Amino acid sequence: MMVNNRKDRILTGMRPTGPLHLGHYVGALENWIRLQQKYDCYFLIADYQALGDHVAEIERIRSAVLDVALDWLAVGLDPKKTTFVIQSYVPEHAELAMLLSMIIPLSRVQHNPTLKAEIAQLNKKDLSLGFFNYPASQVADILLPKANLVPVGADQLPHVELTRDIANKFNRLYGHVFPIPTALVGRIPRLVGIDGQVKMSKSLGNCIYLSDSRETVEEKVRKMYTDPTRKTATDPGHIAGNVVFTYLDAFHPNREELQKLKLQYEQGRIGDVQTKKILADLINSFLDPIRKRRKHYEAHPEEVKAALMEGTSRAKKIASETMAEVKSAMKIHNYEEGLDKITQLQ
Amino acid sequence: MMVNNRKDRILTGMRPTGPLHLGHYVGALENWIRLQQKYDCYFLIADYQALGDHVAEIERIRSAVLDVALDWLAVGLDPKKTTFVIQSYVPEHAELAMLLSMIIPLSRVQHNPTLKAEIAQLNKKDLSLGFFNYPASQVADILLPKANLVPVGADQLPHVELTRDIANKFNRLYGHVFPIPTALVGRIPRLVGIDGQVKMSKSLGNCIYLSDSRETVEEKVRKMYTDPTRKTATDPGHIAGNVVFTYLDAFHPNREELQKLKLQYEQGRIGDVQTKKILADLINSFLDPIRKRRKHYEAHPEEVKAALMEGTSRAKKIASETMAEVKSAMKIHNYEEGLDKITQLQ
Repeated sequence: MMVNNRKDRILTGMRPTGPLHLGHYVGALENWIRLQQKYDCYFLIADYQALGDHVAEIERIRSAVLDVALDWLAVGLDPKKTTFVIQSYVPEHAELAMLLSMIIPLSRVQHNPTLKAEIAQLNKKDLSLGFFNYPASQVADILLPKANLVPVGADQLPHVELTRDIANKFNRLYGHVFPIPTALVGRIPRLVGIDGQVKMSKSLGNCIYLSDSRETVEEKVRKMYTDPTRKTATDPGHIAGNVVFTYLDAFHPNREELQKLKLQYEQGRIGDVQTKKILADLINSFLDPIRKRRKHYEAHPEEVKAALMEGTSRAKKIASETMAEVKSAMKIHNYEEGLDKITQLQ
Repeated sequence: MMVNNRKDRILTGMRPTGPLHLGHYVGALENWIRLQQKYDCYFLIADYQALGDHVAEIERIRSAVLDVALDWLAVGLDPKKTTFVIQSYVPEHAELAMLLSMIIPLSRVQHNPTLKAEIAQLNKKDLSLGFFNYPASQVADILLPKANLVPVGADQLPHVELTRDIANKFNRLYGHVFPIPTALVGRIPRLVGIDGQVKMSKSLGNCIYLSDSRETVEEKVRKMYTDPTRKTATDPGHIAGNVVFTYLDAFHPNREELQKLKLQYEQGRIGDVQTKKILADLINSFLDPIRKRRKHYEAHPEEVKAALMEGTSRAKKIASETMAEVKSAMKIHNYEEGLDKITQLQ
């Protein structure tokens, strides 16, 4: 689908809370790299949103903005094809969120299942109004650049549904301004942590970072959780729930060889040390081109800066165009015109 | 108390939902006229906030902005001494509200007694997220111009309390930026409607507007609710709960004469028609200079426009200064500096 002869626009993003890891790659970046070939992609570094539950750690968020940009460039997101946006540089996000909050029913936010699940994980005492507002903030993030497509995991679907409803409601109330965005629900897999916990997460300390050295990767893989029932390398091993094989499933480039390896493991013909060596080598081969690009950008920080600043300034331009349309549709910024009219009556 | 050698600053305002009436005068404007002599007053026309429960009536809000400005000028607020601000022209209100919402506990908003009371009056189905956010929006309105004093009725005290707490919390977390504002709790009386209902309110249709003609005032006073037990002018009348005397209490310039009048009424020596005539004349004498000024401004709409635009542009300047301080304190807008630093490391 083409809108106004332009490529469909994608809005997606990350909250900058630390360096990115393999879980981010498998769960999002791999998909983004594909999407940038075909779509006009806006990748948002949602630093304002990150404040909602990290307000005491602004320094960390601030440095994480740079980490995230470097990670994005290192994995191969191309600032010539895509637009990197620092949210806090575009205050129109806040203004649009505020305006849209006037037509967002409170009950829709209170009953948002994703928000409810996230609130349940937080200490209720620490829950900020800002965090409660983040579904509205996401609606504004998506609508400000008039995105058509939003790549999400199934758990984020309620946010896109809310966005669609609010875009429709706005268009109905004030006239057509927003395209109705569609969720691009990919098979967005989640990578378990190296300790076997359900999710790779900085706070759990079970990550392999995209910026880890070869040695660190080897070290982390060596410590991986495997099959606790297996005492020696000649015992038959179990694949299910074996973290090493979960990772091999994600990173082995050759399905046939992987099948053979699994068979060997189940028959007790290969030990944990060897399978871990294979996995560490595969991860390192996967990370090598990422390391190479990172090295380039670390040597050329002006290119990182340019990627952030040029993208953000493109986004600011579009944001101010959208806001002008929004205000004109809502007729809220025409007081001067109204005043001119009464002046002319004289 | 002087801060930085400047006059103490006052922030107060109104939501533009229609022409102003005697209730606004007695409850707020009379006090504002006094305050402008002594303080640096910011009078906010809170049009964005009015959207929270009037989103389907934007046209009405839009024209009410002009009505409010004209009413303010007519009662004698002086744009040379004070600053009129159109909220929607200063998007920093939204940005600051968003930033502050990160340090406002959700529970503080949920348990805000004023908000709870107002929500109870609304149809729950229509309750917007924007309306729920309006205490945060008021905090931003007060802190953006760094107001020191906030004239409020007792029912609005929780908003000022919230503002004080959030200003203190911000200063503690990020360094001193905001003065801690003080509530100026006046005896802010409320005028009953001409029908005797507890409050003069446009939606109840029981108002005398500041813009009503002499004839309209006479007509409305004639219809006023008096003493239902009194059949003829020679029956003894009751003062308590008698709307005509409530208004006489508010508008009679001579306490002694009023005392005599009350006595005559209680003794059945003066009829309702006569007392109403006295009241209508008093209200008209009170409104005459207001009408005269209104006539002047209606003939010189460019002065109304100048009052709004000059005030708003003064407010915008101060808003952008405050936001620069806020962002510098929070260290959220220094990515470029951070990027420059890594560039220089090469």
